[in-house]
Amino acid sequence: MIPYTKLLIAGTGKLAESLAVKLGEQRHLNVLIWGRNPEAVQRICNLSNAEAATNSLHNPLPVLLCVSDSATRQVAQELSPFATCFVHFSGSLSLEILPSIEGGKAVCWPIQTFGKPNEINWSAVPLCTESIGEEAALFLAWICKILEGPRIELPEEKRRALHLAAIVANNFTNHLMHLSKTYCDRNQIPFEYLMPLLRQTVSQLGDNDPHNLQTGPARRDDRETIEKHMAMLQKDPELSEIYRNFSSQISQLYNPEK
Amino acid sequence: MIPYTKLLIAGTGKLAESLAVKLGEQRHLNVLIWGRNPEAVQRICNLSNAEAATNSLHNPLPVLLCVSDSATRQVAQELSPFATCFVHFSGSLSLEILPSIEGGKAVCWPIQTFGKPNEINWSAVPLCTESIGEEAALFLAWICKILEGPRIELPEEKRRALHLAAIVANNFTNHLMHLSKTYCDRNQIPFEYLMPLLRQTVSQLGDNDPHNLQTGPARRDDRETIEKHMAMLQKDPELSEIYRNFSSQISQLYNPEK
Repeated sequence: MIPYTKLLIAGTGKLAESLAVKLGEQRHLNVLIWGRNPEAVQRICNLSNAEAATNSLHNPLPVLLCVSDSATRQVAQELSPFATCFVHFSGSLSLEILPSIEGGKAVCWPIQTFGKPNEINWSAVPLCTESIGEEAALFLAWICKILEGPRIELPEEKRRALHLAAIVANNFTNHLMHLSKTYCDRNQIPFEYLMPLLRQTVSQLGDNDPHNLQTGPARRDDRETIEKHMAMLQKDPELSEIYRNFSSQISQLYNPEK
Repeated sequence: MIPYTKLLIAGTGKLAESLAVKLGEQRHLNVLIWGRNPEAVQRICNLSNAEAATNSLHNPLPVLLCVSDSATRQVAQELSPFATCFVHFSGSLSLEILPSIEGGKAVCWPIQTFGKPNEINWSAVPLCTESIGEEAALFLAWICKILEGPRIELPEEKRRALHLAAIVANNFTNHLMHLSKTYCDRNQIPFEYLMPLLRQTVSQLGDNDPHNLQTGPARRDDRETIEKHMAMLQKDPELSEIYRNFSSQISQLYNPEK
């Protein structure tokens, strides 16, 4: 495998930060950070072994696009004179939006949410990949090896579907927790008492189909309890809407004859 | 603390099973199981140190009501000649539905979902309690000490609110996972790739407000991605309904000016 000695990370968000920390741990690898905001670039350099790229773009090198989905096309265009190949890290963007350069282009979508960079256990993060061109394929293989997580080669259409499913699992679960916590706060009951339950809910999912794990009033079509709860939610229009929607779907799923 | 030597568990479901296993570990404690179905009673006796109660109800003893919410009132009525006090384990039932016997009555709601009995780490399960009467209060304190989890004394109204929040956190999260898995199955992509993401989502919640953790297209009001996803969900009416509903709520929450 070719030992790359230099690469460029474009972006200064949480993903860029996490990649800079992880890749910066590689000996003999020079990680450069490129971004519009010099302070944000410097912040990442301070917490990793990376260097600011502003004045050092002399020879072409592999470019890791870690900017927002909406900025990716334009940043790639801007950096294409300096790129041997491109890799973007988005679950939803097509490879088509990147310029067709000689070395090619690739996707390496980490199926993870990025908070603090040191909290990421990269070896447990599945990497969803796709590539066009020889150089991009080789560089992608090298990056995946360093990041260590299981690699899943998926065509664009299936990656998009997995991205949608990831939004449901992550963003929507998080919104449920926000609604649940807001309701607890309003009723002066501590939300943290629900954490062991939530951990058990997720832990059971490892070995079981969620369809078989369902419990609660909607599963047993206990309309009396559901109506009591709806009455308790009169001052919480968002949670009330979600409660009715979920209870109705769950009741119908488990009690189709009614 | 009074060392109780005998008690009765009424019910043969997962909670009864988990309690029989846990309480059966106590030396010098005789756990009796009462249920309508002798085979179900025998099954619990086989996997714990409990005994079937059918022929041994001579002296009154503390009764743990672990039947379904809808059966609790009637079973308590039926067992009241043999009960020194009652404890029920429901998040939503009022103490009022239990008969008023001399020793009193209590609630001990474990904020947990019950699957296989040996998987429950009781010491991490918060116990939400309430009691009426001296004997019931003493017995409740004893049970909580054996189960070990943190005890939260909450009046009925707050317990009901916490129960509602627990349904959102557990049952609704589980339904989201069912929808996400069904969508993955239909698109022939493996749902298990989302598990590390989901674990991280829940693990972050321990130290952070979910409101600050939100990411994704709805948070940044990325309508182009949302509309693409809606188009991908035309054959999935349940997930489509949930997707639109959540995206709309999240967009409004984080982009109120639009």
